[in-house]
Amino acid sequence: MESPKQVDVIVIGGGISGFTAAYHLKKLTNDAKSFMVLEAKDRIGGRTCRSTLCTKNGTANWDMGGQWVSNSQFSIMKLLKELNLDVFPQYQSGYNRIVVHSLTDVRRFCGHLPPLNLLHLIDLHLMIRKIEKMVAMVSAENPLACRFAGEWDEQTLQTFVEKTCWFSSNVEMMAAVTRVMFGAEPSQISLFYFLYYCSLGGGFEILTKNGKDSAQEYRLKDTASNIVDVLQEKIGSDNVSCDDPVVSICQKENEFVLVKTKKGKIYHARHVICAIPLNLVNHIDFVPPLPHDRLELSSRAPMGNIIKFVATYEHAFWRAHGDSGESVMLVKKSTTGPLSVTFDATTFNGDPAIVGFIGGEHAVYWTTKSKLERESIVIQSLVAILGKEAESLLLQYADKDWCKEPYQSGGPVCMMQPGCLKYFHQALRRPFYSVHWAGTETAQKWTGFMDGAVESGIRAASEVANRLQLPQNVSADESVSKIFDDKGLPWKKSNRGLFGVIWLPALLVLGAYFVYKNQRVEQG
Amino acid sequence: MESPKQVDVIVIGGGISGFTAAYHLKKLTNDAKSFMVLEAKDRIGGRTCRSTLCTKNGTANWDMGGQWVSNSQFSIMKLLKELNLDVFPQYQSGYNRIVVHSLTDVRRFCGHLPPLNLLHLIDLHLMIRKIEKMVAMVSAENPLACRFAGEWDEQTLQTFVEKTCWFSSNVEMMAAVTRVMFGAEPSQISLFYFLYYCSLGGGFEILTKNGKDSAQEYRLKDTASNIVDVLQEKIGSDNVSCDDPVVSICQKENEFVLVKTKKGKIYHARHVICAIPLNLVNHIDFVPPLPHDRLELSSRAPMGNIIKFVATYEHAFWRAHGDSGESVMLVKKSTTGPLSVTFDATTFNGDPAIVGFIGGEHAVYWTTKSKLERESIVIQSLVAILGKEAESLLLQYADKDWCKEPYQSGGPVCMMQPGCLKYFHQALRRPFYSVHWAGTETAQKWTGFMDGAVESGIRAASEVANRLQLPQNVSADESVSKIFDDKGLPWKKSNRGLFGVIWLPALLVLGAYFVYKNQRVEQG
Repeated sequence: MESPKQVDVIVIGGGISGFTAAYHLKKLTNDAKSFMVLEAKDRIGGRTCRSTLCTKNGTANWDMGGQWVSNSQFSIMKLLKELNLDVFPQYQSGYNRIVVHSLTDVRRFCGHLPPLNLLHLIDLHLMIRKIEKMVAMVSAENPLACRFAGEWDEQTLQTFVEKTCWFSSNVEMMAAVTRVMFGAEPSQISLFYFLYYCSLGGGFEILTKNGKDSAQEYRLKDTASNIVDVLQEKIGSDNVSCDDPVVSICQKENEFVLVKTKKGKIYHARHVICAIPLNLVNHIDFVPPLPHDRLELSSRAPMGNIIKFVATYEHAFWRAHGDSGESVMLVKKSTTGPLSVTFDATTFNGDPAIVGFIGGEHAVYWTTKSKLERESIVIQSLVAILGKEAESLLLQYADKDWCKEPYQSGGPVCMMQPGCLKYFHQALRRPFYSVHWAGTETAQKWTGFMDGAVESGIRAASEVANRLQLPQNVSADESVSKIFDDKGLPWKKSNRGLFGVIWLPALLVLGAYFVYKNQRVEQG
Repeated sequence: MESPKQVDVIVIGGGISGFTAAYHLKKLTNDAKSFMVLEAKDRIGGRTCRSTLCTKNGTANWDMGGQWVSNSQFSIMKLLKELNLDVFPQYQSGYNRIVVHSLTDVRRFCGHLPPLNLLHLIDLHLMIRKIEKMVAMVSAENPLACRFAGEWDEQTLQTFVEKTCWFSSNVEMMAAVTRVMFGAEPSQISLFYFLYYCSLGGGFEILTKNGKDSAQEYRLKDTASNIVDVLQEKIGSDNVSCDDPVVSICQKENEFVLVKTKKGKIYHARHVICAIPLNLVNHIDFVPPLPHDRLELSSRAPMGNIIKFVATYEHAFWRAHGDSGESVMLVKKSTTGPLSVTFDATTFNGDPAIVGFIGGEHAVYWTTKSKLERESIVIQSLVAILGKEAESLLLQYADKDWCKEPYQSGGPVCMMQPGCLKYFHQALRRPFYSVHWAGTETAQKWTGFMDGAVESGIRAASEVANRLQLPQNVSADESVSKIFDDKGLPWKKSNRGLFGVIWLPALLVLGAYFVYKNQRVEQG
């Protein structure tokens, strides 16, 4: 066993959150304090990572993890600017596709209105409006102040959707959304947590739509995994140790924290920033043990299941067809249509590709299959959706099965189960003696996104810098809140669009339907 | 680091399940194989443990964990007989008490019919009948064969209860039940898992009622923690190592399994029986990693929250009042009435006591308070329920806060969250190379009970003995299934009682109420 190494701060987790924390700590303390980033995996990046795939003229990099950023995500946009990392808009010109129930029913449409019949659309609209109203009632700062917190945390999102929607296609629409957003079925998420999650991103539509200020607005010119690479350069790779999982954290008040890794290394630190997903926290042996509520948070927020694939092509044939490459699949059976959504993933340099996600129960099924089997079913689906060139022009298929990722076992985010948020929210960011919490799950804005990872890293670094009793420059935290004060919350504005126009006539049309429906339910 | 120790079998977990596994392995292999039981805590017993409390004439022992057994629990009854451990009936003569909404409304009643008004009773009856019908559709062997598996695993038990019950007192009745049964609110359990759990015990009423064949039929003359003590004598305490948490399990096909403990001890074993709660499995570092579905089971089945107390008295004043000591509390606020249920806990030798449970959200709240504060509120409640002698005749109050129990962090059982059982059930008992699974959560009958712990221990021991290629005597497993064949499933018989008689008239009475109720809901 090596002799203990003294550092001021240990950061556990070499993802965006951990690296941002280390980077800001370095800045806030003017390089005066020593720190180490300990990463369990053999690579840095956490839930971002890249693959190098064949292109027509060589190779290029694609993101196999987190990839989108948005103008409404102030923390990450500020960081990217600081790091000189450029973004470019997500391609979204042309027709989208929607698969309804089976791969034989693929419909093409323009804009946000899917080609469903009027009643389906009204149904969908009413659900989205209802969700947005509920989201507006859940404050990001103090979600428990919502008077429906108890009621909404007692049910799954599935229960709400089934109660709210008349048509199974809309129930499936919501499933397609949560499969990508959480890697989960709506049955595996608390309704209240879902609303809280949306609230932290500014609203349900912001999270799900494309375009200005939405969650899928921009991509990085290089991949998103560049963020940690650049941050590592800034903080110095000597301060980073990979393949070095932390197994225990022992602390006594006003004394050093003793951090032990699986390799037998021991660190004496003044503070610890724990920047790992919620569900992994209780894999570390804490002495004294974590408070009951913090432990509960960890055991009641499993990671979702998701597989992300990228298929590279000779040329962007879908663009030639007038398609955007974006599609959504409303299919239930894991075996017939494994995809949830696809997007154009052509690089900034013009190397064409399609990216897509297999999430929720689809991922649970397809993680048990070989990559070859997954490739076969995915390309088959792409042929049905985008045309036969999806097979004939294919250069390379690659996927990242996050279900099998070590020290993570799932993706993209941890989600709280019913009866978790309302009882244990207070423990989410509360420091435990000298241990501070970061990671996108602890974010106060855009939880689950790279922005949340950055914001939480900055917050944790500020907490630690404060406790190291150092004069602080204006922290990025404050400048972010300044932007908020100046602009308000721009994305909280109502965004009714075409739906707003059909609202009144729809109400009239629906009177009769309500009566019919109610009678049918009572008979059923 | 010590040199590796060679043993044939390592049993992880020194609770009833682990000890039963070791004991049966010893029997099945005629002492020919070596084994070690490794326990993380500094004591054996798992979810059983005892406290010695003051009595009028000295001291006596009480169970602070699992305590009841039943004639319909064949595995444990057979074991107790074999170990010469006697049982005696749970005291249940006299009046029961029910607290409705607040401690100022305490009602006294005889038998199974609580003194609620007729409509409340009919409502309660209809819910119980509905649950029993649903339980009957969930087979213990293959729960996924149920055609409603998907639908029922998409919702919480709370959603079902609220949809089914008209009266909040009955919603609270169900909460009182799950707070004791799972240490959880109905919102924290999948409806499907709840039904599966009931099915494995033979039905909802079997699990909740007193009397013949029910779950609360007998107690042990000595405490239930005696079971592991006697088993330890049988297997030899040299084969047991406490305070010795396992940190990693490495295995290669057809080679020894390498088991490493926190103390740095290393064991080379041919097989491992992992007899720990589901939620703790992923605290062990498996190489190769556990299959995805087994990991998911561990991260989607948190342990409940429960605090058990025992109050000893000079004499059993409640018996003198004609009371049974049994009470159930239908109160929501954690601060005003923390108890869920109480029972007479007088020892076989006649030392009077009351036992009770603080479970679910009540435990979440009261675990943050001191023992003194808990004692004060509990005794205050007992005074309201049983009379002022609950304070004046008190000898000693003791409680066991299972939320704070190390290497467990909760009690009494792990419960699956929505969207867990239907996707991951197949992994529950499937061996992982040389690692076999025991623990009451993996039982095929009476999961969550001491009986399930014994049954699963016997099964795992049989699996390992089989793989050690030894001739086996008739295993206890087989003799149990023989009893089943002879007798059928006695507790699956319908048990309508008085409710059966009021079924038809009730239907007639209710017609009008239904109409009124429906109108009210639509207006609401």
